[in-house]
Amino acid sequence: MVTTPAGTEPPGQAKRADARRNITAILDAAQQCLVADPEANISEIAKAAGVGRVTLYGHFASRAELINAVFARAVADSERVLDDLDLDGDPHAALGRLVAASWRIIDEFRALLRAAHNYIPAERIRVAHDRPMRRVQRLLERGRVAGVFRDDLPISWMVAVYHSVIHSAATEIAAGRLSDNGAADLITATLLGAYAPPSS
Amino acid sequence: MVTTPAGTEPPGQAKRADARRNITAILDAAQQCLVADPEANISEIAKAAGVGRVTLYGHFASRAELINAVFARAVADSERVLDDLDLDGDPHAALGRLVAASWRIIDEFRALLRAAHNYIPAERIRVAHDRPMRRVQRLLERGRVAGVFRDDLPISWMVAVYHSVIHSAATEIAAGRLSDNGAADLITATLLGAYAPPSS
Repeated sequence: MVTTPAGTEPPGQAKRADARRNITAILDAAQQCLVADPEANISEIAKAAGVGRVTLYGHFASRAELINAVFARAVADSERVLDDLDLDGDPHAALGRLVAASWRIIDEFRALLRAAHNYIPAERIRVAHDRPMRRVQRLLERGRVAGVFRDDLPISWMVAVYHSVIHSAATEIAAGRLSDNGAADLITATLLGAYAPPSS
Repeated sequence: MVTTPAGTEPPGQAKRADARRNITAILDAAQQCLVADPEANISEIAKAAGVGRVTLYGHFASRAELINAVFARAVADSERVLDDLDLDGDPHAALGRLVAASWRIIDEFRALLRAAHNYIPAERIRVAHDRPMRRVQRLLERGRVAGVFRDDLPISWMVAVYHSVIHSAATEIAAGRLSDNGAADLITATLLGAYAPPSS
């Protein structure tokens, strides 16, 4: 690939770079606008992105398509964060790190998911949980082999409990019954209890 | 109150007894029909109750009103079952009894709630959970005083975990990932772990 000084790219290449910048600006603006107001419309998002409605519609044919693209990008970003986590070593500590990182993502996603709720099929939301759930399962299996997690309950159930306890914390915070402060530690303490071998 | 042999009641009294029988038949039929098919309509429900549509509408002005009445009766029935539970003695065993009874109710309610979902305001569903949740809280408080449940987590959070783990089991069973068989024991084992003092 030949690199050229800024402003001197061949016309086609400059156009593609422009388009990429616009798409990024539109997705950033859409995410911010939808988090602030789940009902944010295309005109508001275009304005926040600094592009015209025609440009926006050139990239995303509908509001639903735009919301789906925002969701897809957020899922991909989250996956990168979770993939970079070190889940080796003591399974208790690894669970704490996984909960803390997952919690930050859910916290960030919550408003976005609320906005996207009506535009993203439930099946797609479920599939987006598949990889995170497999990560939890691998950690639980490792902890079982190490003898620090219980093995008297089905592993799929223990994964479901992880999911359920984290989302319950999000609901409690949204309802004002729980403080966001220290929520990740609370979740980890609850899960470590639920996962402890019953004899211990 | 004067009792009279069947068929010889004064006309007004016989009419009221008829009306009561019809209301019970309509509520029974509505509950059965809605559990079998959440979209069951008024004609089907009237037919199953053995009354005409006009009679049904004489007691319940709309399908929504009928569904609300079915829900209210189911809540009252559940409350009676839970009020009769013995929650004294060993808190662990009491929690097991409470989970088993709650689980049977949720199992019965699940299809009904799915049917009622669009017709019962979320706030009413929340209020219906208030008394059951207070019952859980009292048991947890008693177990804390006895030193068998942890006291390092907010009590409202421990109540939320109860709620969340039970409903998660219902979801897992509906999705075919968990067997209904032994589910109450699984829930109790999970909660007892989550509630155990961390040092134990």
